[in-house]
Amino acid sequence: MVVLPLLCACPLPLSRGIMKPMHAQPLYQRLAEYYRDAIQSGALPPAARMPSVRAMVRTHHVSLSTALQVCRRLEDDGLVEARPRSGYFVRRAAAPRLAPATEPDMRAPADPARYVGIHDRVSNFVARCEQHALSTNFALAAAEPSAYPQHALRQAMSRVLRMNPELLTSRAPPQGALELRTVLARRALDCGIRATAQDILVTHGCIEALNLALRAVSRPGDTIAVESPTYFGLLQILESLGLRALEIPTSPQRGLSVDALELALRTQAGIRAVVVVPNLQNPLGCIMPDEDKQRLLEVCVAHGAALIEDDTYGALADGGPHRAIKHWDRAGDVIYCSSLHKTLAPGMRLGWIMGGRWQARVDMLKFAQSRPNEATGQLAAASYMATKAFDRHLARLRRQLTQQRQWVADAIAREFPAGTRLSLPPGGMLLWVELPGGVSGMAVFEAALGAGIRVAPGAMFSNSGRYDHYLRLSCAEPDSARIEQAVRRLAAIVAALQK
Amino acid sequence: MVVLPLLCACPLPLSRGIMKPMHAQPLYQRLAEYYRDAIQSGALPPAARMPSVRAMVRTHHVSLSTALQVCRRLEDDGLVEARPRSGYFVRRAAAPRLAPATEPDMRAPADPARYVGIHDRVSNFVARCEQHALSTNFALAAAEPSAYPQHALRQAMSRVLRMNPELLTSRAPPQGALELRTVLARRALDCGIRATAQDILVTHGCIEALNLALRAVSRPGDTIAVESPTYFGLLQILESLGLRALEIPTSPQRGLSVDALELALRTQAGIRAVVVVPNLQNPLGCIMPDEDKQRLLEVCVAHGAALIEDDTYGALADGGPHRAIKHWDRAGDVIYCSSLHKTLAPGMRLGWIMGGRWQARVDMLKFAQSRPNEATGQLAAASYMATKAFDRHLARLRRQLTQQRQWVADAIAREFPAGTRLSLPPGGMLLWVELPGGVSGMAVFEAALGAGIRVAPGAMFSNSGRYDHYLRLSCAEPDSARIEQAVRRLAAIVAALQK
Repeated sequence: MVVLPLLCACPLPLSRGIMKPMHAQPLYQRLAEYYRDAIQSGALPPAARMPSVRAMVRTHHVSLSTALQVCRRLEDDGLVEARPRSGYFVRRAAAPRLAPATEPDMRAPADPARYVGIHDRVSNFVARCEQHALSTNFALAAAEPSAYPQHALRQAMSRVLRMNPELLTSRAPPQGALELRTVLARRALDCGIRATAQDILVTHGCIEALNLALRAVSRPGDTIAVESPTYFGLLQILESLGLRALEIPTSPQRGLSVDALELALRTQAGIRAVVVVPNLQNPLGCIMPDEDKQRLLEVCVAHGAALIEDDTYGALADGGPHRAIKHWDRAGDVIYCSSLHKTLAPGMRLGWIMGGRWQARVDMLKFAQSRPNEATGQLAAASYMATKAFDRHLARLRRQLTQQRQWVADAIAREFPAGTRLSLPPGGMLLWVELPGGVSGMAVFEAALGAGIRVAPGAMFSNSGRYDHYLRLSCAEPDSARIEQAVRRLAAIVAALQK
Repeated sequence: MVVLPLLCACPLPLSRGIMKPMHAQPLYQRLAEYYRDAIQSGALPPAARMPSVRAMVRTHHVSLSTALQVCRRLEDDGLVEARPRSGYFVRRAAAPRLAPATEPDMRAPADPARYVGIHDRVSNFVARCEQHALSTNFALAAAEPSAYPQHALRQAMSRVLRMNPELLTSRAPPQGALELRTVLARRALDCGIRATAQDILVTHGCIEALNLALRAVSRPGDTIAVESPTYFGLLQILESLGLRALEIPTSPQRGLSVDALELALRTQAGIRAVVVVPNLQNPLGCIMPDEDKQRLLEVCVAHGAALIEDDTYGALADGGPHRAIKHWDRAGDVIYCSSLHKTLAPGMRLGWIMGGRWQARVDMLKFAQSRPNEATGQLAAASYMATKAFDRHLARLRRQLTQQRQWVADAIAREFPAGTRLSLPPGGMLLWVELPGGVSGMAVFEAALGAGIRVAPGAMFSNSGRYDHYLRLSCAEPDSARIEQAVRRLAAIVAALQK
């Protein structure tokens, strides 16, 4: 509270500024700059509470919305952070900067494509987790339930049921509810995709979409190129479909190495498709540069491999969605898969697929595999997504995740032993932590369970054995004190294992 | 109305009977017999309106519930029929009796197992249907929406959402909602299955359950024995999974020929599983005798073939569910699949599977294929199914379908050309009609489309080409006048094609 008097004492220059109608910068930006100076000069020291929004209104004679804009701007710039029911605080001094995650060794010989054996590892992981009480969950890749618009979705669902009395007892619409497909087509424009409702098939989450995509373009025994590391759920799908995985080196900064993929396509037969998560890759969190996305598509087309794009996390990128590879697709060579599971409602299994030139086969496989999704949830989601409330929710969720990611990353930087490496991703909820001195992620996982903490060990994200000294930590926990505590505990476990 | 005075004039013998406390028969039975006599003697002629329930109460000095029991009894005996909002009517004179559907020729050599090619036929069927306006739908195997408890389900859904505010934004429970699995386990007792909630996995309808069952026990290229004719949806699943179908002769009266199956298992290698619908087979409507069910299981076990049982329609058998084959399963050799799609809510994709000794693999495949079903619908269905209202609904639905089946069958018997054959099934909503003189079902299908009538041509139920002179007619239409009119139109089409 030492700083408030200082700030309150100098409203005049700003207030005078407001009166100049031709001032170059908008008012909120000037006010934000004023506070930025105060923070950078130390007038507002790290961890200090910011003046309340109401105090800003009073002090600077500005509107409530301007004061809020100021706080948001400072938050976006990483200078302050919101704490639920407590207001804004100056962020702690930047944590010691961690070295970025190690780049893959591109000279190492590629692993051969092989049938993966991930089921047992995942089953074992789930079984081990269930044997222990849980206090902090760094393993679950979804924000906490209250981070999603529960109330609005419930209301939408009740309204849908009221307005369509026969919904539960009539057959579901083929391909999915037109209302949802229409909204999805409109929102696809945000990542540069021009599509119509007819191009979209609603699925049971992105998982079903990926199953359909793979079944549409490949047969058991075929090889599928995937990122290394990659989401264990994808490896499970490959295993269950009898497909071989060819792991392609993937940079924690730039994503899939298109050079490595091209080499593989040139030198190995039977690579039927490439599955890629170009935006906020799981577990790395990286976003492929646009030129890599374009080149990847060209390479796939040139070698006759289908390109399956998983864009589940894309809408959670800081600043909004990046371009999908599908943006550059002219001839239907990209199968685009996504879901609302991370962005709107983890409890609704709503995904979708644009099958490109395989659309008819994808439609047929969906019909044979599970029939159309039931309509109620689709209509509820569509009615919510058609409003601005969805955009506001996404912006809020992105801000919240940015903060939580930063909290976890800062705590790791402060607490973990030297040698720990980490690239802070530009969005989403996942951190890929490289442990120091070859500490085993499986050993950390096991020891952490005993402390009530769940982490995802690196070994689950590849079949190569290359990532045992990694952890994937999700940043779904909204309580900074709990994060601090759990990360400190994890750090102690890592340190103990290092000896 | 001519008969009412007669009946009203003679209440005394019955009323006196009531006073005898030691009378052997319950009151409602004696009263039902009284009306049976009146109908059989012609005192109540065909198509006459029955005395109203209120009139019965007044005339015979009985309670309302006794009068209702009388009507139900007469209805169950096929003597009267209820018409919505009009009361009970004496059934028309029995239609000319049709010869039962032809039994399969057991001496004919079996077709070889082969990859089916049903997708194109089904796609063509759907596309052709969409090109024509619809007035009567004999192709859809579900009762009309109002035959299901719409209102109660909507209420249950709203209540579930109110009581579980985080349901839509929290992860769905693995294996499905415990509440639903518990109710399903309890209700499985009705068909003789002793199971616990842990034995059950909730799926997206019976279709997903069948996919999982087949994927759990077989690999692409394997052979699966199926009934002939069988549901085209099953043939589609086989085609999409790269499995060969071996069609086993199936009697319209007794179902799958266990002898023919045993011969196939003895003489052909690579038959991995048998898929069978023992209760109300689709399209035949037959129920396998208990001794056949038992022997089928023994034969499968002896030859190491998995037995996949589809019991989707079982609960719609007249008088309630028959025994499932799973009843006799001691070692987990039967995979049991079912759904609520026909019995509770065609708009909710709720099915389930008991995987027997393949349960762990089935669980894994479900996780890899689509993740657990979302919880809202499951909890709503569970809360409704836990009450007696569900039993009352099932009884009502069975009565309604019995009547609708009879209406369609009677109309066929009256209107179709001589030589038409049909076995009236003991439940469900499907009739398998054998056309006279080798008339093509595809030709009838095409001509009927132009008249706004949809039927399912026999060719869709097999890959053998044996059933082109059949139609599957569903009895979902609740308006007897519309049925009469549509069947007459169909009959004219058949007659014209016969020339």
